[in-house]
Amino acid sequence: MTELSEPTVVTAALLVIGDEILSGRTKDKNIGYIAEYLTGIGIDLREVRVVPDVEDDIVAALDALRHRFDHVFTTGGIGPTHDDITADSVAKAFGVPIDVDQRAVDLLLERIPKDQLNEARLRMARIPDGADLIENKVSKAPGFTLGNVHVMAGVPSIMQAMLDAVAETLPTGARMQSRSLAAGLKEGDVAGPLGELQAAFPDVSMGSYPHFEEGVGFTTTIVLRARDAALLDEAEAAAEAMLEGLRGRA
Amino acid sequence: MTELSEPTVVTAALLVIGDEILSGRTKDKNIGYIAEYLTGIGIDLREVRVVPDVEDDIVAALDALRHRFDHVFTTGGIGPTHDDITADSVAKAFGVPIDVDQRAVDLLLERIPKDQLNEARLRMARIPDGADLIENKVSKAPGFTLGNVHVMAGVPSIMQAMLDAVAETLPTGARMQSRSLAAGLKEGDVAGPLGELQAAFPDVSMGSYPHFEEGVGFTTTIVLRARDAALLDEAEAAAEAMLEGLRGRA
Repeated sequence: MTELSEPTVVTAALLVIGDEILSGRTKDKNIGYIAEYLTGIGIDLREVRVVPDVEDDIVAALDALRHRFDHVFTTGGIGPTHDDITADSVAKAFGVPIDVDQRAVDLLLERIPKDQLNEARLRMARIPDGADLIENKVSKAPGFTLGNVHVMAGVPSIMQAMLDAVAETLPTGARMQSRSLAAGLKEGDVAGPLGELQAAFPDVSMGSYPHFEEGVGFTTTIVLRARDAALLDEAEAAAEAMLEGLRGRA
Repeated sequence: MTELSEPTVVTAALLVIGDEILSGRTKDKNIGYIAEYLTGIGIDLREVRVVPDVEDDIVAALDALRHRFDHVFTTGGIGPTHDDITADSVAKAFGVPIDVDQRAVDLLLERIPKDQLNEARLRMARIPDGADLIENKVSKAPGFTLGNVHVMAGVPSIMQAMLDAVAETLPTGARMQSRSLAAGLKEGDVAGPLGELQAAFPDVSMGSYPHFEEGVGFTTTIVLRARDAALLDEAEAAAEAMLEGLRGRA
């Protein structure tokens, strides 16, 4: 991947497609993985949507997201069955034709004997006009990129291989850096001063996460995030001093 | 909860609020739980969105979802810190005032000594005008229901207790029933015939889920879902016959 020289912000949305996620039958494992992965390569994930295998819903979500964010990643709905309608929905959203793509057929034939490449399996080779294929090292059936939409499989191992392949092609932004501080205090005791600190450092994103620690009781982790390391150092020192003062009082 | 006498469909959306989910720092555990829970009580989860702690984004998502679905559940953003802005965002979406609510203060005082009820902790008692409180058996700070929006905590144990409390008050729909069939075949071999079966039973939702089984290789689970048990029996018998035929050929 190419690191941009200017510290720009690159944004993304994720669209998870599948009835099985909404019914609870399958527990999604992709949202957390993709969120952490994109953060790691300097892309800000700004929104996630989960929609059913319904063309109108998929098209509406694609149209809502692809104009607002630099990239849209999708997972799910690119298998061989009747409810795998992601590729057709993407083609519809972009208003381009879709058909069986010989490049994708060639990839499928690396794994599937020709006499088993039935009509259903050929669905996996339906690619919208003008799309670039995304390599699938696990089971060959490719994903694709059309415009700023990256269409990936729903099976986590395959999605992860595809995300690696897509990431190589993306210019990424200035990387978000973070610092975690163990407050040693309850969230309600930290909240007020942390709000003041946030106001003093508007370009540092500050969050607090209460949790229970064996032998300690309720305590809080403070997380500071920014793209500018020097600014983050300054905010961290100020946060440490703030916490020190609060612990002295407690 | 009241079971409606007519087999109606009750729909819902889930709005997950929090920067920490989008950055990948926290892995969401609520989507899968809520999806399965709602399915179990006969409510169809139709869409999920994850948005950051940004008022405009929360209000826009609430407005997009609350008019389209019977219920909207939210998780996250009701703690004591500056970035906990869910209650204020809900008030804004509904155009109602919000202030510290004495009922919520009384609940907080059951757990927090009066001299520790500082300004930050009082944020947890900010409730929009006209809302009903949702009990929090875990840590007292309540959620609330305003119109068709149910505002819950993000911490899974607290969210789960709140969901139990909300569910008691909801009329639920005819319960979705499901049947799982082990196909013993690869998805690409099942896909075509399953598509035909789906066309023959338009009121039964049919999905297929490929997975790898030790000693068997790639195989597929077929899931049939419908509210009408007799129809589901019929579809299941047809699916068994279809699979039997395919296995004979394989």
